[in-house]
Amino acid sequence: MKAAILSVGTELLFGQITNTNTVYLSQQLNMLGYDVMYHYTVGDNAKRMAEMIRLAFSDCDLVLTTGGLGPTQDDMTKEIACQVMGDELVLMDDVLAGLLQYFDNLGEEMTENNKKQAVMPSRAKVFDNETGSAPGFALEKDGKFIVCMPGPPGEMKPMFQNHVRPFLQEMSREVIYYRMVRVFGIGESRLETELLELIDGQSDPTLATYAKEGECALRIASKRRTLAEAEKAVDEMLKKVMALVGEYVYSCDDEELVEVVCRKLMEKKLTISCAESCTGGKFAAALTDIPGISACFQRGFVTYSNEAKIEQLGVSPETLERYGAVSEEIAREMAEGLARVSGSDLCVSVTGIAGPAGATEIKPVGLIYVGLWYQGRTQCRKIQTGDDDRSWNRQYAMLSMLDLVNRNI
Amino acid sequence: MKAAILSVGTELLFGQITNTNTVYLSQQLNMLGYDVMYHYTVGDNAKRMAEMIRLAFSDCDLVLTTGGLGPTQDDMTKEIACQVMGDELVLMDDVLAGLLQYFDNLGEEMTENNKKQAVMPSRAKVFDNETGSAPGFALEKDGKFIVCMPGPPGEMKPMFQNHVRPFLQEMSREVIYYRMVRVFGIGESRLETELLELIDGQSDPTLATYAKEGECALRIASKRRTLAEAEKAVDEMLKKVMALVGEYVYSCDDEELVEVVCRKLMEKKLTISCAESCTGGKFAAALTDIPGISACFQRGFVTYSNEAKIEQLGVSPETLERYGAVSEEIAREMAEGLARVSGSDLCVSVTGIAGPAGATEIKPVGLIYVGLWYQGRTQCRKIQTGDDDRSWNRQYAMLSMLDLVNRNI
Repeated sequence: MKAAILSVGTELLFGQITNTNTVYLSQQLNMLGYDVMYHYTVGDNAKRMAEMIRLAFSDCDLVLTTGGLGPTQDDMTKEIACQVMGDELVLMDDVLAGLLQYFDNLGEEMTENNKKQAVMPSRAKVFDNETGSAPGFALEKDGKFIVCMPGPPGEMKPMFQNHVRPFLQEMSREVIYYRMVRVFGIGESRLETELLELIDGQSDPTLATYAKEGECALRIASKRRTLAEAEKAVDEMLKKVMALVGEYVYSCDDEELVEVVCRKLMEKKLTISCAESCTGGKFAAALTDIPGISACFQRGFVTYSNEAKIEQLGVSPETLERYGAVSEEIAREMAEGLARVSGSDLCVSVTGIAGPAGATEIKPVGLIYVGLWYQGRTQCRKIQTGDDDRSWNRQYAMLSMLDLVNRNI
Repeated sequence: MKAAILSVGTELLFGQITNTNTVYLSQQLNMLGYDVMYHYTVGDNAKRMAEMIRLAFSDCDLVLTTGGLGPTQDDMTKEIACQVMGDELVLMDDVLAGLLQYFDNLGEEMTENNKKQAVMPSRAKVFDNETGSAPGFALEKDGKFIVCMPGPPGEMKPMFQNHVRPFLQEMSREVIYYRMVRVFGIGESRLETELLELIDGQSDPTLATYAKEGECALRIASKRRTLAEAEKAVDEMLKKVMALVGEYVYSCDDEELVEVVCRKLMEKKLTISCAESCTGGKFAAALTDIPGISACFQRGFVTYSNEAKIEQLGVSPETLERYGAVSEEIAREMAEGLARVSGSDLCVSVTGIAGPAGATEIKPVGLIYVGLWYQGRTQCRKIQTGDDDRSWNRQYAMLSMLDLVNRNI
C-alpha cells in the first residue's frame, strides 16, 4: 500500500525545527510494508492542507498527518480531515471525560478552548494520547485512510507505537526487509559500475547506492508476502554483492566505521593510542564519542608542531629534515614512537596536508600518510585525495586511520 | 516571493537520513525575504517529481530542489527540470572540462557515466560545485525559477553560499538585513525572558532566539526598502540587546566560538596547547579545523587514562588518589603540567564525566572541570550540565574551554 506523510506547522517552514517525525514515521511505515511515496510540509493554512491531502490520495491509500490537533485557533487538522473525507465533527463524551481526567491528574482546571479537543469526526476511530491532551484518530472513505496524530514527538511516538502501529499492521499486506551495506575506499560511481550487472533490470531485491561523507552505502531491499521470503532474497543478493565488492565492505548492518572498530576493540580487549597531525584530534574525538571505549583507548597526541613530534613521540629531527613532516617515514616514526610511549596494542598515526595552504611543489594538498604499529610491525598507507577541502581531507584521513585499524584486527 | 523546497531521494522516504537540507534552506530563504510555503519529498521517480514541481509553481515563484544530479541512472532532476521548464539538455564543454579536471586532481580516470554531469539544460545558469562533481543550475520560464542543487549537504551548502544565495538575493525585491548574535552561558528560555521587553510587540526589527548545541543564537532582522534603512534599524536594536545580555555575547556576526577564539589567537600571536580527558580530542579537533591555526596550536594531549595523565602531564598520583580524576585539583595540575611540557602561552585542560556511565555517589554525570594556565596563573571553572547525554556533555565541555580562553585573551 502507498502512503504519504503530511507535516503541519509553520515552524517547520521557517527552519526553526528539524522534522524528525517524518524520519521516524518513514522508518516505521517502511517496516510495516508500506511504500512511502511523499513527504509534504505545509503551514497552518486550511486551503493548502486540504489540497495536499487530496493530492496525496490521488495515488496513495494512506495519509498520515502530524500537527494541528491542539486547542488553539490555528489547529485545524480535524476540520480539514472532515472536509476531505466527508464527515462532520461531533462532541464525544468519552473523549471529553478522558480530557477532564487528564487535567485533573495535572491538578489543573481545564480551560474552555481545550473542549475543542473532545470534538472528533463522527466516524473516527479515536486513539488515546497517553502523554498529552490531544487525541489522534483514523478516518476512512472509499477504502482510503487518513490517520491524524499530534505534532510533538513525545506525544506522537507513543501514540504511534501503542495505537496506530497495530491499526496499520492489520491493514498491510506486504513486508519489506532491507540491509544497509557500508563501504569505504571506493567512490559511488565506481561502486555502481562494479555492481552494474546486479543493478540493471533488477526489480526485487532492489539495490541503491548512496554517497556519504568520504564513504558510500548500498541498500539491498526486498518486498515479499512474508518476512522469511524477503530475508532470503536480500541475503542471497548480499552474497553476490560481497563476491564483487566485499573487500570494501565494513558493515552489512549500517554501522558507522568507528562503531565497527570500537566494537571489535572492546570484544578483543585491545588497547589503542593515536598520534595525529593533520586530523588534529578528530580520530581521538571520534573514538571517545563511543560509550565504553575508555577500556581500550589509552592516550592521544596531537603533535601539530615539529617540536611536539620530536619531544612527545621521539621522532628524529634528521628524518624531519630529510623527508619533511608529511612523509611515510614520519608516519612510521610517529607510530613507533607512540608504541614506546603508550605501550598500547595498536598505535595509529597520521600526517598530511589538509589544506587549503601547506602544499609544496612535490607535495599537494590532500597528500596523507597513515601509519599503524601492531604486533611489533609497522605498516603505512599513502593517500592522495585530490581535494582542496580541509574538512573533507581531515574526514577522509580519519576514516583511513579507522579503515587501517579495522583491516588489522 | 513565495518558494517551495523539493527534496529528491528515496533514502529520505525510507527514513534513512534526516532531511537537514530543508532546515538549512528554509532558514536561508526566510532570511533572504522569501516565504517558504511547502516542503516536498519525492523518490527517484520522474512522473512524481514533475508533478510536484508543477504543483509548486501553481502558487510559488521559486522551486529549490536538492538531489538527483549525480551520474547514475536514477539521477533525473535535470531531465525533469527541462521537461517542466521547456528546455533541452546539451553537453556543455566548459562543464566537461571542469569535470575532467576534478577527476584528474583526484588521480582517477573519469568513468563514462560521469559525463552525464556535464550535460545541462541549454538555458541554464550553471553553478560550480567546489566540493563535488555534480554542478547545479538555475532555469527560468515565464518569470518563475527552478534552482537545482546536489543532495549531499557538504556539496549543497557551499554551492548555496557561493552561488545560489547571491543569485536569489538579486531577485528578491525587498532588502532583509540581519545580524546573528551568538551567546554562550545562558539558555534559550532565559535569553528570551531577559529580552522580553524588546521581543514583545516588535514588528520590525524582529528578534528570534534559536537553540544551538550547547549555546544560543539571536537573530535581529529588518526588512526595508533600502539596505541602509535596514542596517540602521538592526544596529539600534543590537545596542539595546547588548545592554541587556552583552556579557554572554561572543559574536555579533554569526561566528562560531571556535572561530572567534582562533581569530584572536592568530591576531595576538598567542600559542596554545590542550590536555583533554572527557572531550577526548574534540577541543583540538575543533581548533585544528580552522585554516592557519598551525601558527598558534602547538600540541594536544588526550589523557584518557590515569597513567597518561601522570606520564604525559606530570599529574601527581597522590592528587588523583585523594580527589579523583574528575576534580578541580586535577584540572589545575593538568593545565600546569601542560604548561611545563608545551611551553605554550595558553594551556587549557578539561576533566569530567561525560556519561552515560562513570557517575559516583558524589559526582554526577555532567560534572566537568575546565582549567586554564595563562601568564603564570591558573584558573578553574566547575560546570554541572545536569544532563545524561554523552554527546551533549562533551560538546558543552568543549565550548566551556573555548569560552574560558575567549574571556582571557
